[in-house]
Amino acid sequence: MRFAIIAPDVPTQKWKKELEQLAPQIPLVIGAETDHVDEVVCAMVWKQKRGALQKFKNLRLIFSMGAGVDHILEDDTIAEHIPICRVVDPQMAFSMSNYVIMAVLNHHRALYDFQNAKQQKHWAQFDFDERHLKIGVLGTGFLGMDAAKKLHHLGFDVIGYSTTPKETPFPSYAGDALNEFLAQINVLICLVPYTPKTQGLLNYTLFEKLKQPTYLINVSRGSVQVEDDILKALEEGLLCGAFLDVFEEEPLPKNSPLWTHPAVQITPHIASLTYPKESVLQMLACFKRVEKGLPLPHQVDRKKMY
Amino acid sequence: MRFAIIAPDVPTQKWKKELEQLAPQIPLVIGAETDHVDEVVCAMVWKQKRGALQKFKNLRLIFSMGAGVDHILEDDTIAEHIPICRVVDPQMAFSMSNYVIMAVLNHHRALYDFQNAKQQKHWAQFDFDERHLKIGVLGTGFLGMDAAKKLHHLGFDVIGYSTTPKETPFPSYAGDALNEFLAQINVLICLVPYTPKTQGLLNYTLFEKLKQPTYLINVSRGSVQVEDDILKALEEGLLCGAFLDVFEEEPLPKNSPLWTHPAVQITPHIASLTYPKESVLQMLACFKRVEKGLPLPHQVDRKKMY
Repeated sequence: MRFAIIAPDVPTQKWKKELEQLAPQIPLVIGAETDHVDEVVCAMVWKQKRGALQKFKNLRLIFSMGAGVDHILEDDTIAEHIPICRVVDPQMAFSMSNYVIMAVLNHHRALYDFQNAKQQKHWAQFDFDERHLKIGVLGTGFLGMDAAKKLHHLGFDVIGYSTTPKETPFPSYAGDALNEFLAQINVLICLVPYTPKTQGLLNYTLFEKLKQPTYLINVSRGSVQVEDDILKALEEGLLCGAFLDVFEEEPLPKNSPLWTHPAVQITPHIASLTYPKESVLQMLACFKRVEKGLPLPHQVDRKKMY
Repeated sequence: MRFAIIAPDVPTQKWKKELEQLAPQIPLVIGAETDHVDEVVCAMVWKQKRGALQKFKNLRLIFSMGAGVDHILEDDTIAEHIPICRVVDPQMAFSMSNYVIMAVLNHHRALYDFQNAKQQKHWAQFDFDERHLKIGVLGTGFLGMDAAKKLHHLGFDVIGYSTTPKETPFPSYAGDALNEFLAQINVLICLVPYTPKTQGLLNYTLFEKLKQPTYLINVSRGSVQVEDDILKALEEGLLCGAFLDVFEEEPLPKNSPLWTHPAVQITPHIASLTYPKESVLQMLACFKRVEKGLPLPHQVDRKKMY
C-alpha cells in the first residue's frame, strides 16, 4: 500500500514531510512516475496531467490538495467509482476571507490613490472619501459564506447569492434571483466553484447588470472570468477596478494588458492558502473511512461538480 | 444664543450644513472672527489657534470635532470651568477599525511585494508566505478595543494593553506590564490618546523591546511618534515596515524621508473619519444636558487628558 502526491506545477516538499510524519508506515510515490503502480491506493492531486491517474488500477481515493476539484473532474480518464474528496479547512477560510477583506478595504479607503499621492509627496487629506459599498458575495459555499459573514461583522452592507437558498445573517438571493442580486451591488466578490455553468460567468453581459461602477474581486477560478470583457468593462467604466487572484491562463502571460493596467491588482493565485498538515490529516481520516466502507466527508458530487 | 464652528485647517461646510438642518433656530458663527462674541455658548472645535476661544466669555460647552482633544487641552487660555466633550461614534470605529485591519492585512499577505512583482510582470506564486502575526493593540479605549476585537474575530492572535485593566476576549496587559506586552508582538498598533505621558512614546527604546522585526501601525497622533527613531529602527531591522496616518508635523513636510521610504505607507490623517451628522447630533444632545445641568456623556477628564 502506497500513497501518491501528484502535483506537477507546485512544490510538494511540505506535503511529503507532513505525510512522512503523520503516516510514516505508508511509503510514498511523488509524481506520476513509479514502478509501484499497483500499490497506490490513494492520490493527493493538484492539476495532474490528464490521464496521469489511469494506471493506478487499485486507487480507492482521490484527494484534492486545494479547495477546487475542477482539475480532477475535467479528467475524463478517471474511473467514476473512485471517490473524490477535498479539504474543508478553517485555516483555509482564514486565508481566503482575510485576502478578500484586504481587497475590499483597499478599495473602500482608496489605498491605491494614497499610494499614488505618496509617490508625488502629496498630502491628499481631502481628496478621497471613504466609499459607500454594497458588497455582493457570489457563491456562499464554505469559503464564500465565511468571507461574507466576516465582512458583515465589520459593518459592511453585504448580500449573498448561491444556487441553493442558504441561511444567512444578511440578505441572500438564490436560484433565478441572480439579476436582482447583481443590480444592487458595487463590489462583486466571486467565490463560485468552477463548473461548466460558471465558465465565463464574469463577462460583459454580467457586468452590465451591476450597479455601476463596480469593483470586481475574483478569487475563484480563472476560467470563470473573461479577461477581454474585464478590460472592456474597465475602459467603459462599468468596472472601476479589479482585484484578481486567478487568470484564464496561469501564470498570467507577460503580454496580458492586465499586468500594466493601473486599476487592476494582481496576485498569483495565492488567496486561499492550503495548509499541508490539515489537508494530510483530513486525507488520512478520509482514507480510514474508505477502508471501513463509511460515508466520506466533503465528497465531491460529480454532477454538481463541487 | 449662537453656536460656533472653529476649525481653521479643515473644510467646515458639511458641519455647517448639518447644524443648519438639525438646529435651524440657532444662528452660527464660522471661524473665530465674529461681532457676536457674547452670544456664543457652544463651540465645535478642531485645532483652533491658541487663545481663539478666550473672547467667548459665555461659552458653556466645547465639543471636539474629532476623537482627540489634545488640541483643546494644550490651549491653556481655556477656562477650567468649561466642560469639554468629544464624539464617541460607532461609525468612527467602523472607519478606524477598517483602516487598521487594512494595514494589518496588507502586511500579512505581502501586498506591497505583490505590487512590486506586478510592476515586473513577475508571477511570484511561491515567493511570499502568509506572515505569522502576533498583534498588539497599544491603547484599548473605545476605538482601540473595537479594532482589537475585530482582528481577534478575524482569527488573528491579538493582545491588548491599556493603562487601566480592561475586560477583553483576548489576553490583556495593563499598568506596568507594558514591556511584557511589547516583548510578544511583531505588529504594533498604536491607538493611545495624546497626553504628556504618550508624547514620543514610539521611540527607539520602545522599538528595541518588541519582537523583531515588528510592523508598526500608528493611527493615534503624530506627537506620539519619533520619526527619526522610526527611520533608524527601519534601517537597523527592528522594524520591518510602518503604516503611518499621523506625523509630527502635518501636512508631512516635503523633505521628510518617510515620503520616499519603500517600507513606509503614508496616509494623510484620514484613518478615523468623523461623520458630521453624528457629531452634530451628539453635540446638540450634549448641549441640552448642559442647559439642564445634567452630567455630560464622554466629558474629558482634564487630568487624564482623555
